[in-house]
Amino acid sequence: MSGQHYAAIEAGGTKFRVAIAEGRNIVADITVPTTSPEETLAATIGFIRNWGGIAAVGIACFGPLDLEEKSPTYGSIASTPKPGWSHAPVLSHIREELGVPAAIDVDVGGAALGEWRWGAAQDLRHFIYITVGTGIGGGLFVDGKVHHGMGHPEMGHVPVERVSGDDFAGFCRFHGACLEGMASGPAIADRWGAPGADLSEQWEVWDLEATYLAQALRTFTYVAAPQRILLGGGVMQQSGLLELTRENLADQLAGYVTSDTLRGPLDHYVVAPAFGQDAGLVGAIALAMEAASSGG
Amino acid sequence: MSGQHYAAIEAGGTKFRVAIAEGRNIVADITVPTTSPEETLAATIGFIRNWGGIAAVGIACFGPLDLEEKSPTYGSIASTPKPGWSHAPVLSHIREELGVPAAIDVDVGGAALGEWRWGAAQDLRHFIYITVGTGIGGGLFVDGKVHHGMGHPEMGHVPVERVSGDDFAGFCRFHGACLEGMASGPAIADRWGAPGADLSEQWEVWDLEATYLAQALRTFTYVAAPQRILLGGGVMQQSGLLELTRENLADQLAGYVTSDTLRGPLDHYVVAPAFGQDAGLVGAIALAMEAASSGG
Repeated sequence: MSGQHYAAIEAGGTKFRVAIAEGRNIVADITVPTTSPEETLAATIGFIRNWGGIAAVGIACFGPLDLEEKSPTYGSIASTPKPGWSHAPVLSHIREELGVPAAIDVDVGGAALGEWRWGAAQDLRHFIYITVGTGIGGGLFVDGKVHHGMGHPEMGHVPVERVSGDDFAGFCRFHGACLEGMASGPAIADRWGAPGADLSEQWEVWDLEATYLAQALRTFTYVAAPQRILLGGGVMQQSGLLELTRENLADQLAGYVTSDTLRGPLDHYVVAPAFGQDAGLVGAIALAMEAASSGG
Repeated sequence: MSGQHYAAIEAGGTKFRVAIAEGRNIVADITVPTTSPEETLAATIGFIRNWGGIAAVGIACFGPLDLEEKSPTYGSIASTPKPGWSHAPVLSHIREELGVPAAIDVDVGGAALGEWRWGAAQDLRHFIYITVGTGIGGGLFVDGKVHHGMGHPEMGHVPVERVSGDDFAGFCRFHGACLEGMASGPAIADRWGAPGADLSEQWEVWDLEATYLAQALRTFTYVAAPQRILLGGGVMQQSGLLELTRENLADQLAGYVTSDTLRGPLDHYVVAPAFGQDAGLVGAIALAMEAASSGG
């Protein structure tokens, strides 16, 4: 595939990152603010069209997306509070305008695919990619591909058991005190009255955070039995938080599952993603390559 | 396959049910108490050998099992508090003694397979089978097969958020107040001081039970995006509990995922399994058929 050019779109809620890649190497890129679908998609498509000669487009997009097989609106945004974006036909519009194969997945699904091809999940058949930032999301990779069942997972919204003494009401507008409501970046800022970046020396902040994250990793472990969990996103930049989460998870697992995967300090089980903040864009390149080979 | 005979073993913690099936119809069966592996397996194998002429054996077995691909002890019991059974080589012993293809899965995995072939999950590619009884277990079916990743799922042990006013400590010897610790049959009996069967008129018992079960179904929904959840087991025999759990789940989902699957009263999403208390044995027949066709 070397020499082949692909367009990669990381479609985020505040900005679109659009790149041209030769193989997996980015050779040009722009950032477009997320305003209306018409405006943002026009700028995105314009950049790709001006470059010319691309083989396929991959889109790692904010959710929720319609990813139901056989749905007439496959690849559109689903209902979203984001003004103007409900039902925006992202995939079909890009396909029609550019006339090349294109593939779409939610950002975390794309990121999982990229990490599997080139990053921290190579050679695994089953793993989970989690990002902890403004929101919390997860991609489930099963048997060598990104899992879609009835749509895509929404791992950030699992229930968690409230830690004794924590009386924060929870931030999620749908579920209150779900994982995202208790442990996302905005939840941290709201609970402690300052953004996480200003709290880096306060161990009680990260101890609590690790407890909630470890609960979720335990949930994901028991439901999906992954071979590894990749744990990234802005909040995970906090020094020591990954290690603290691992320790807490080991305590919570309580030796119940005796698989070799879960023995010892879990430092091969819970790891940082290889591509960090670029995971979505790298994933979009991987999606483009899949579209090119399937003609999607 | 009609006319072909299979042996089906539902290997439970207190008894083994062993059946001979012609196609999927049981033509003979016995029950063997679960004592030592030597004794129980000898009686099981003796019954099958006396019958003679079977094409394959299927085993739906209590867990935890070693189901890691490529493990040298694949198909053995893993570490278990059950005296004598840790590392018992159930699959390899049965294969060697009977000299026919054999397949094993955890009871809930087998049950899921049986429900998929002939029961309440036909024509689905992704679903979950849950049993709520002495313990709580779940089988995850993805892309047309029972999912094994790092071993098999342990869905009964996910965390739940404690319901305000419920001060029951939790019953699970590993996790305390996990789903199984709060909502299994023994948890109900312990919390209320009487077995569930004697509490059938006390709505507060079932209201609380439905809340915890719905939390778990929400968890499973958000992690694995199944097309359906089959909810069975002894506790689910309580009249009205399935409906109460559906209602509670609809509240908890809070309209966040807008898939058609989750619209309306959820009466196609959360359903009773078709084979009820026979799900494990029927699943073992399905496993035997798979072993026969794969030569496993």
